[in-house]
Amino acid sequence: MNKELKKQILDLHKGGKLNITSKHPIDNRNILSMAYTPGVAEVCREIEKDKNLVYKYTIKNNTVAIVTDGSAVLGLGNIGAEASLPVMEGKAQLFKDFANVQAFPIALVTQDTEEIINIVKNIYPVFGAILLEDISAPRCFEIESRLIEELDIPVFHDDQHGTAIIVLAGLINASKVKGVDLKSLKIVISGAGAAGLAITKLLLLAGVEDIVILDSKGALWEGRDRDMNSYKKDIVKKTNPNKLQGSLGDVIKNRDVFIGVSKPDILTEEMINSMVEDPVIFALANPNPEVNPEIAKAIGVRLLATGRSDFSNQINNVLVFPGLFRGILDYGIKKITNDIKIAVAEAVASCISKPTAEFFIPDVFDKKVVEKITETIKKFKNS
Amino acid sequence: MNKELKKQILDLHKGGKLNITSKHPIDNRNILSMAYTPGVAEVCREIEKDKNLVYKYTIKNNTVAIVTDGSAVLGLGNIGAEASLPVMEGKAQLFKDFANVQAFPIALVTQDTEEIINIVKNIYPVFGAILLEDISAPRCFEIESRLIEELDIPVFHDDQHGTAIIVLAGLINASKVKGVDLKSLKIVISGAGAAGLAITKLLLLAGVEDIVILDSKGALWEGRDRDMNSYKKDIVKKTNPNKLQGSLGDVIKNRDVFIGVSKPDILTEEMINSMVEDPVIFALANPNPEVNPEIAKAIGVRLLATGRSDFSNQINNVLVFPGLFRGILDYGIKKITNDIKIAVAEAVASCISKPTAEFFIPDVFDKKVVEKITETIKKFKNS
Repeated sequence: MNKELKKQILDLHKGGKLNITSKHPIDNRNILSMAYTPGVAEVCREIEKDKNLVYKYTIKNNTVAIVTDGSAVLGLGNIGAEASLPVMEGKAQLFKDFANVQAFPIALVTQDTEEIINIVKNIYPVFGAILLEDISAPRCFEIESRLIEELDIPVFHDDQHGTAIIVLAGLINASKVKGVDLKSLKIVISGAGAAGLAITKLLLLAGVEDIVILDSKGALWEGRDRDMNSYKKDIVKKTNPNKLQGSLGDVIKNRDVFIGVSKPDILTEEMINSMVEDPVIFALANPNPEVNPEIAKAIGVRLLATGRSDFSNQINNVLVFPGLFRGILDYGIKKITNDIKIAVAEAVASCISKPTAEFFIPDVFDKKVVEKITETIKKFKNS
Repeated sequence: MNKELKKQILDLHKGGKLNITSKHPIDNRNILSMAYTPGVAEVCREIEKDKNLVYKYTIKNNTVAIVTDGSAVLGLGNIGAEASLPVMEGKAQLFKDFANVQAFPIALVTQDTEEIINIVKNIYPVFGAILLEDISAPRCFEIESRLIEELDIPVFHDDQHGTAIIVLAGLINASKVKGVDLKSLKIVISGAGAAGLAITKLLLLAGVEDIVILDSKGALWEGRDRDMNSYKKDIVKKTNPNKLQGSLGDVIKNRDVFIGVSKPDILTEEMINSMVEDPVIFALANPNPEVNPEIAKAIGVRLLATGRSDFSNQINNVLVFPGLFRGILDYGIKKITNDIKIAVAEAVASCISKPTAEFFIPDVFDKKVVEKITETIKKFKNS
């Protein structure tokens, strides 16, 4: 990065990126006595009598906690709570600016699973929902599933499900461009962390039947016993029906779709050439994709998506989380079910009425996206 | 309270009282790539290299956590986390509107001392200081002292020290009006909870020599063994030099000052008449003071302060915490020492150049108060 741009970025961050302000500035005795003592006591008494009124009379109705332990931040790894804050503040800005949801970053010192669960369960009253962010696998799975079970507000790990939803949205439209049924696609996924496993699960739920996942040791198959954990053991029961083994180069042959949530530059020209005619490539490693988009284009890949904002078809979670949380807060949804996740993916995909190879994923600034997502979530009200 | 006013108060609270917004709205690709990925990674890396930069590049430099467990809220008692939120939001508004400090309410489910300490120690990275609020005694003492010891940011229990500082400020000016030395005052304090004990300690540090404290069982004296706890046992070693025993009626005779942080209407005309000529009465029980101000005035009390906004000389913590936190955040103060507390009390008192019986405590909207406090705290920079 050039020095001038870096300086500009650092300058933008001076003093942080979020403001907390009064909705009704306290500038006279009358409002002081209503927003604070003695008047505020009336509001406390109402909520004490009926706890549900906390949604009516406090910021809970529109406030999300962005909770991280700084263990898996962007591509930077385990950089800790303090260093993770600029990302969390940025995410809070996106919540506000894209969907008028307000969010506050909670960056935790501890990286202990039980402690994180306990802390979130204790700080939750002021929040209407919890976004878990940049917590490394496999701890993120246990933390999320336990919190979903034990809290009466929605909990959503963005690195898993936000990514899975936008990938599914992209694949729905890529299938349309190719003129094939999504369910028939033979898919290879490079990366068996939080994102890779969540994408796999959502694609299975959407009806895809043939997915092969790889970690750094090669394909996951039922029977492999090295470097497996309980999450990988679960997923191999539902994937890799032909028990393919070997490296990416081995298993990618004749596949329709490559989805990378792994490392830069692992997808070679040769591998792409071994796939079907007109393959779909989602190279999502950030900031450097699994294949340089220029190279992919040069060898004729049409249906290409990356995480990069300097190419079309950017896969970015910001297409999902603002609208999703706007919807669940507005319609009092307590659990973000698989049906909701699939419906949201369809809603995002539907923002492009006639997808083409050049344009099958909506622009991040397309205002229709939040609208379509919230309309869709409305259907799940009281469900 | 009349119905119309109550409705107005509830309406004011709809949707809560705080906004969280972007300082730089993310409305184009350029700012998105600086405030969020990929640019934000540069800022994360800088903080990872030098953790102190978290003060420069995040909201930590100006953000306070208002932490409560809802166990001792206003005069309402143990109403729990949810019901406490309107007070905490109000306090956050006051921080912003009075001193441009931003604050976020953290209302905890747990009321377990060790758990509260552990949670605050884990959520602290995004905060530049911690305000503990409405946590009942004696747990508040342990929670505060442990957090002060174990965190590298300032921690301040407002119900103790905020109250103590403003009471000391009021007494400094009341002494001037009477033309006597503060240190010579014989004081009786009704209430041996968080506020009563903190007021006592600060007055002792300010040089006052004769203080008698009462709890609901009567005067605390060295030798009493019923209903004592370790905090009361400590304080009796430094107070009640003549080992006075008995009820308020017994020990108030010939005292110069009554400070009530206890219950409505416990201070009778007869008791006031048994005090010295021209006594000082701080009747701070909220919303109903220890003596009805009308009655006190009617029997000739000149130097009267209450917590009520409808009388002059209102003792209100809002005269202290906004300026105090503005100062400690601006000047990088890590511990709020006793010297700082006394200096802040003197600063508040000094806002009135010529105190009179009618006006010896500054108006809550007096903008000089925050200025004077921050000027004073500046002197403690690098101390």
